[in-house]
Amino acid sequence: MRPVITLLTDFGTKDGYVGIMKGIISGISPDANIIDLCHEIGHQDIFEGAYILYSSYKFFPRGTIHVVVVDPGVGTKRKIICAKTQNYLFLAPDDGILSLVLNDEKPDFIIEVTNKKYFLPEACPELVSGVSNTFHGRDILAPVAAYLSKGVNPLNLGKKLTKIKEIELPAPTFFEKEADARTNKFVHATPAKRGVVKGEVIYIDAFGNLITNLKQDIFPPPLFPPPKRGRIKVAGEDVIVTAGKRKIRGISPSYADVPVGKPLAIFGSSGYLEISVNRGSAHDMLGLRRGNSVIVNYKI
Amino acid sequence: MRPVITLLTDFGTKDGYVGIMKGIISGISPDANIIDLCHEIGHQDIFEGAYILYSSYKFFPRGTIHVVVVDPGVGTKRKIICAKTQNYLFLAPDDGILSLVLNDEKPDFIIEVTNKKYFLPEACPELVSGVSNTFHGRDILAPVAAYLSKGVNPLNLGKKLTKIKEIELPAPTFFEKEADARTNKFVHATPAKRGVVKGEVIYIDAFGNLITNLKQDIFPPPLFPPPKRGRIKVAGEDVIVTAGKRKIRGISPSYADVPVGKPLAIFGSSGYLEISVNRGSAHDMLGLRRGNSVIVNYKI
Amino acid sequence: MRPVITLLTDFGTKDGYVGIMKGIISGISPDANIIDLCHEIGHQDIFEGAYILYSSYKFFPRGTIHVVVVDPGVGTKRKIICAKTQNYLFLAPDDGILSLVLNDEKPDFIIEVTNKKYFLPEACPELVSGVSNTFHGRDILAPVAAYLSKGVNPLNLGKKLTKIKEIELPAPTFFEKEADARTNKFVHATPAKRGVVKGEVIYIDAFGNLITNLKQDIFPPPLFPPPKRGRIKVAGEDVIVTAGKRKIRGISPSYADVPVGKPLAIFGSSGYLEISVNRGSAHDMLGLRRGNSVIVNYKI
Repeated sequence: MRPVITLLTDFGTKDGYVGIMKGIISGISPDANIIDLCHEIGHQDIFEGAYILYSSYKFFPRGTIHVVVVDPGVGTKRKIICAKTQNYLFLAPDDGILSLVLNDEKPDFIIEVTNKKYFLPEACPELVSGVSNTFHGRDILAPVAAYLSKGVNPLNLGKKLTKIKEIELPAPTFFEKEADARTNKFVHATPAKRGVVKGEVIYIDAFGNLITNLKQDIFPPPLFPPPKRGRIKVAGEDVIVTAGKRKIRGISPSYADVPVGKPLAIFGSSGYLEISVNRGSAHDMLGLRRGNSVIVNYKI
Repeated sequence: MRPVITLLTDFGTKDGYVGIMKGIISGISPDANIIDLCHEIGHQDIFEGAYILYSSYKFFPRGTIHVVVVDPGVGTKRKIICAKTQNYLFLAPDDGILSLVLNDEKPDFIIEVTNKKYFLPEACPELVSGVSNTFHGRDILAPVAAYLSKGVNPLNLGKKLTKIKEIELPAPTFFEKEADARTNKFVHATPAKRGVVKGEVIYIDAFGNLITNLKQDIFPPPLFPPPKRGRIKVAGEDVIVTAGKRKIRGISPSYADVPVGKPLAIFGSSGYLEISVNRGSAHDMLGLRRGNSVIVNYKI
Repeated sequence: MRPVITLLTDFGTKDGYVGIMKGIISGISPDANIIDLCHEIGHQDIFEGAYILYSSYKFFPRGTIHVVVVDPGVGTKRKIICAKTQNYLFLAPDDGILSLVLNDEKPDFIIEVTNKKYFLPEACPELVSGVSNTFHGRDILAPVAAYLSKGVNPLNLGKKLTKIKEIELPAPTFFEKEADARTNKFVHATPAKRGVVKGEVIYIDAFGNLITNLKQDIFPPPLFPPPKRGRIKVAGEDVIVTAGKRKIRGISPSYADVPVGKPLAIFGSSGYLEISVNRGSAHDMLGLRRGNSVIVNYKI
């Protein structure tokens, strides 16, 4: 089985930076199967990188080495870390970008990567005169990932760490009345059986789908588990989803549940509630941005 | 020989969606050689996807599995189909996107893909709890393509279909006089020996080349077969190509046949007449869009 | 060891052109490890292509075949060339795009590629009826690269050439006074021990870093070799870097040497002086373009 290495960066594709990382990896580990996860994370947007990794990592084969380079602190004393979980290895700067995945799949251990034997220039002495202060993707993460893919034990990379930098997905909040959700009054710790939840847009994809932090399994029955087919209703009534100035009736089973050009709410492929437009862009239509609130009223 | 799988989608590269499909494929079929054909098809633009596939598919090795995910009907009852031709396998939603290639290379058979054994979650039980209604690229097309690349017989995927959805390239029309072409009067079924043909722009590439539906072999001699070198002329005279408000004299053998910055007509690499600008963009200069007409007058 | 082929083009990723080249290569050389170096070179911008290749090529394993298709003269009599250096093979149109790398790593020999046995249609007779005049990437460079990766001797491709087209990086100029640098008076051939050097922006990357032609090793001590840590100073004083209307004090060891949002000068990962902004874009902040001058005053 060829070892899989994924690359997730904010490098864009205009420069040779991603290609250079692949060159370093291929020199050390010629059989590695290098897969681009995404290179268009907003420059130094750690939250976006963390979200994309979190929503993607588990669709790769066991043993995959996920390499993340969104690194505003490059050249400073921020650490580089390697986390070993049951199924994967993760390699990234210690800037919080791994915290969503490591909440999802608990790490067996986390290493501070310091062993220069696996960095440039030692890893490829003819290439550069030293580790640069601006491109650790090339000088550290690529060669370390390549050696991991050849079977180097992550315990050889440095010492164990007990604490890493963390960021969190914003948590949804629960209310009994929609008016309370608007004013953030009388927050409940857990979903009322039939009530109101307030979340926010956490990611906007290339189709203009507005992905919220409202995961399907936070809802009480009959919203979760969902019905096999048809709209998700409560006591036969549509729930009401408020996104910006728009009120959307019901949670749809597919985009085509509403006419072309109309907005809908749907549980998307990553399990979160999304606001979409059938054959259109919810981002363009509703003008919502990351952080804007979305309220689901399931107390009909 | 490593099996080749190509991916053609409208996903863009901003999200992790393409990477996720490659993760699924690599988990099932680690030796697959996955090649990006293109991911920047206009969102849900079936014609554009059909054209890119049609102009590209035959440059891949025999046995290549071409996977297409431009899927406005995802989550509805639209079928997913697998077509077997002499040289290739094609896997796509039944939305017409395969119809140009299947007119070009007749299928041995077409299957409606229904065998859930090759879908998520059965194909990778630990990954998801069910097939989503928004991402069949991940849940159906990727795992099915991976299994095909491992030798699964396409006949195992479901039952044969006799009819699929079709779209067509717009057909050129022939006239005896250019004035008739402008008013669409007195259309001829076939090219007059020396006459007028009216086509339209069907695709605009990243260089701004305006690719028309006028394939070289629709023209009578001496336009086809073309001369070995030099401009294509009729009885020693340049033909006249009218694109928007611009009249272009002659069909050029190369971009550099005209001065830098000037427009030209040329039979491009896919065999269709293109309107180009030497070291510039015909799209920017002439302002033509898909569907705008281009008239070739070879009745000097 | 799988042979590595890199692709550097100005094709963009909107069309199927890059995918088609990979299809041709994979058909002839199924084990080739094809790596995208970059496809977003400005259309027909030979200098940009030359710079990206020059700053990237040596991070690939020995034996890598670097294929470059930035080809404004496609279809004319411009040559296609193959250069063999100690570590690499380069394949490109003879438009100057190889000249920066071939100044860096002298070629053992350069071949004019003329042997049609390795071109379409001979290389894959069923595919096309002849070599097109608009897409030599598909018809010539891809199949030739594929055959080279299978061990074909580059000497079989055609006859040796003694002269190719050249472009050059603009050379920095040295002065004793900053006022002279502004008026280009009293140019010195070599760096004065403590003086002034005038360079220019040669490339702007996706982060908005302004990369100049001022390589670190052109500076006299104590600027080069640089100190192990901390700002590079001369006699305890910061040097002054003038970029547009902005004066920047000191050459920083890392982006975070200055507050977030502030500009800095830094020797980047390719060894050239770059003007950057900590967590921002120097291009957006300073408005400099390629060719704009940057002056370093190290005569405090």
